[in-house]
Amino acid sequence: MRTNEDTTASALEAALPDGAVMTDPDLLASYRHDQAAGAGAGQPAAVVFPRTTAQVQAVMRAAHRRQVPVVPRGAGSGLSGGANATDGCVVLCLDRMDAIREIRPADGYAVVEPGVINQRLRDEAAAHGLLYAPDPASREWCTIGGNIATNAGGLCCVKYGATRDAVLGLEVVLADGRVTRIGRRGIKGVAGYDLVGLFVGSEGTLGVVTQARLRLRPLPPPPTTAVALFPDLVSAGRAVESIMMVAIPSLLELMDATTLAAVERFAPMGLDTSAAALLIAQSDLPGQAGDNEADTILTACDAAGATEAYRSEDAEQADMLLGARRLAFPALERLGAWLLDDIAVPRSRLAETISSIERIAADREVVIGTFGHAGDGNLHPTIVYPHDDPDAAVRALAAFDDLLHVALRVGGTVTGEHGIGMIKRHVLAEELDPVARSLHDTVKRALDPTGILNPGKALPLRP
Amino acid sequence: MRTNEDTTASALEAALPDGAVMTDPDLLASYRHDQAAGAGAGQPAAVVFPRTTAQVQAVMRAAHRRQVPVVPRGAGSGLSGGANATDGCVVLCLDRMDAIREIRPADGYAVVEPGVINQRLRDEAAAHGLLYAPDPASREWCTIGGNIATNAGGLCCVKYGATRDAVLGLEVVLADGRVTRIGRRGIKGVAGYDLVGLFVGSEGTLGVVTQARLRLRPLPPPPTTAVALFPDLVSAGRAVESIMMVAIPSLLELMDATTLAAVERFAPMGLDTSAAALLIAQSDLPGQAGDNEADTILTACDAAGATEAYRSEDAEQADMLLGARRLAFPALERLGAWLLDDIAVPRSRLAETISSIERIAADREVVIGTFGHAGDGNLHPTIVYPHDDPDAAVRALAAFDDLLHVALRVGGTVTGEHGIGMIKRHVLAEELDPVARSLHDTVKRALDPTGILNPGKALPLRP
Repeated sequence: MRTNEDTTASALEAALPDGAVMTDPDLLASYRHDQAAGAGAGQPAAVVFPRTTAQVQAVMRAAHRRQVPVVPRGAGSGLSGGANATDGCVVLCLDRMDAIREIRPADGYAVVEPGVINQRLRDEAAAHGLLYAPDPASREWCTIGGNIATNAGGLCCVKYGATRDAVLGLEVVLADGRVTRIGRRGIKGVAGYDLVGLFVGSEGTLGVVTQARLRLRPLPPPPTTAVALFPDLVSAGRAVESIMMVAIPSLLELMDATTLAAVERFAPMGLDTSAAALLIAQSDLPGQAGDNEADTILTACDAAGATEAYRSEDAEQADMLLGARRLAFPALERLGAWLLDDIAVPRSRLAETISSIERIAADREVVIGTFGHAGDGNLHPTIVYPHDDPDAAVRALAAFDDLLHVALRVGGTVTGEHGIGMIKRHVLAEELDPVARSLHDTVKRALDPTGILNPGKALPLRP
Repeated sequence: MRTNEDTTASALEAALPDGAVMTDPDLLASYRHDQAAGAGAGQPAAVVFPRTTAQVQAVMRAAHRRQVPVVPRGAGSGLSGGANATDGCVVLCLDRMDAIREIRPADGYAVVEPGVINQRLRDEAAAHGLLYAPDPASREWCTIGGNIATNAGGLCCVKYGATRDAVLGLEVVLADGRVTRIGRRGIKGVAGYDLVGLFVGSEGTLGVVTQARLRLRPLPPPPTTAVALFPDLVSAGRAVESIMMVAIPSLLELMDATTLAAVERFAPMGLDTSAAALLIAQSDLPGQAGDNEADTILTACDAAGATEAYRSEDAEQADMLLGARRLAFPALERLGAWLLDDIAVPRSRLAETISSIERIAADREVVIGTFGHAGDGNLHPTIVYPHDDPDAAVRALAAFDDLLHVALRVGGTVTGEHGIGMIKRHVLAEELDPVARSLHDTVKRALDPTGILNPGKALPLRP
């Protein structure tokens, strides 16, 4: 007798071209999980690599008929376990669907397949004088499909919004294999429900995106960079609050002392590691307007108590500082085992949140390096603890949960841009009220009645 | 024996304070319809005026128990019949829930009830140095609740997006009377499905918004205005296409010759009525940057064949020109009976769309004045025909449908900002593919299983 997995694999092999179905257990291993630390992962029955929408439909039909779970996946750069395999599932890897189908400067959009690497689209758009704004830290290797699944953010969001704000239209294959094209071509369009918005950020639990129409904007001029150092984190938080009332920076990033020290150790560049916090802001207004906005930002920093605040006069220095910010996580993660968090809080509660993070680090006896997109209240407190120290691992997990509860206490969210995945379902249940929890179940059941799409992800766990 | 309507009215009277339930047929009449020309309207059983979320819940519970349709309504300024009564329904009028609960400059948001007039929120925000961006033409009398229901647009959308982009969080009463608070406080937040997006633009068919958290931005500086006249509509369309590749105007509006003549007749201000089209653009970049952006726009207009293109040097002249644009519809509607359309097309198809509009006017022997938000491809071709001329009325309706089919043919949408309401359900069915149509039904059934919320609106009619 053949097992269910055998028949699924055979059905997939029959439906897909040669080489598009992988069942060798050794090769499957690298498709079991994304980059989230501490999330569980099962053993997939197969990994499939469709090249066309019709092939994705064939996969979904085969899985639907047999009630086999399907885990959609891009580059696997996710940080919440959203792409982690469950036992016996089919991992639907979309990285071979990587065509940029169209770039239409006159209409301000691109049409791409889900496997396109974010940076590749950015480069192609730039060649047309256009900006694809969403810029997650992983942009050199993450895919547009994954960005859409998680509603990925980045440094740009403070001015240009998250991935959601760049998605005009989608082609989606549903759980039962039907395909639909939804959305619009322009900024405006109110015909029917906002189904595009519903699929963006749904982490592969409602459908599989096979094509996207993405908004492009005129490329902004080179930015002006402002930098400020603070004697304590609370004054840095206050500075962010003031800046955002008077300016629209194109990025506004924070690094705390732990992060600064880690970056300087990792890649010495003469950062002032005596400061408690560094803020980097940019204005992408043209010419004098950019300098003026940078000065407005610096004035706000001075008023909040910055020990030093200056405009970075040369592009090289600005690139170096931004490079330092981009090294924050790589520098912290090599200090030991780590848990990367992703909370977003109201800006007026930033100072309080940062104080709470420091208290949690002390209470739980772990190192927490905090950096992030301060301008939209999105912080990535990163818990670092010794490898092979089970007690420390327990304390780190407790600190991780403490951080999430701080976010909820100040009216924030447990995830600003990484998604719920597997690791935050318990706290999502706390963030949502009971009726919102039940609405999530209602929507999931309506779109995926048999629950085969990415089970065990993204939805609130019953408290 | 009491009728169903009697018992509903009694139940509502029992649940609401004195004066909150209106059943006098004479008084009900003015709550039967919105501003859409040509949409049918039934006779409501009652109009209710709740003042609190709990009262809205009581209304929904009473209606749900008795399976009585509920038509939510704000100021009734809608243009698609979305607030029109159906026979025996309860009209749920939210205009007495008009508190601005909070304005939080540090966090960049306001919390308001649905009955707040758009302009009142704009004024309050401006007093804090902040902008509430969405600015529908009816902003002096339309309500935020209605703006959310229709995902209303306006002149600002070309730079700042539509109402959807300004809604961070919602309190919603569901069909069965349950209440939930969904969304977030900041720009970023990816916890759970985007239910906020699903409710925005759903025209009262999925739930009743009882509170909204709305995004505020720093108030931009006074704009620089650029004006250009064109010898034909096609070159104006080409100019729009070019402008949007190199600039991010804060508005970019078009008026054709018919509209210009109507406005000049209505309020003589010396407009050049010999031009085939007038474009008005603004830049709200600060200082010299604004002037430069205006010049970039003028250069694009010259290249596209403008006969005249100039920066408006004084604020008074700029206000006059913008005032003229705002008079476009009032000036056209007094020329006779009218049908106001609302299509949005890809910018590269604007010229072709405008040519098609001219052809339709000739073929159907009606006057069509075209104006609109050209920068996002959103046009309001307004069909004008003699009162009391049944043949002309038939031709006007045919022209209305022709316009919608032009939008679909060039890859646009049948509604850019007014919504589907009652008058565009047949063409929504054409705009959506069969699977998307069925997804609409699925979502509606999931959230409003008994179909009491605004029946007969917003959803595609079966072809």
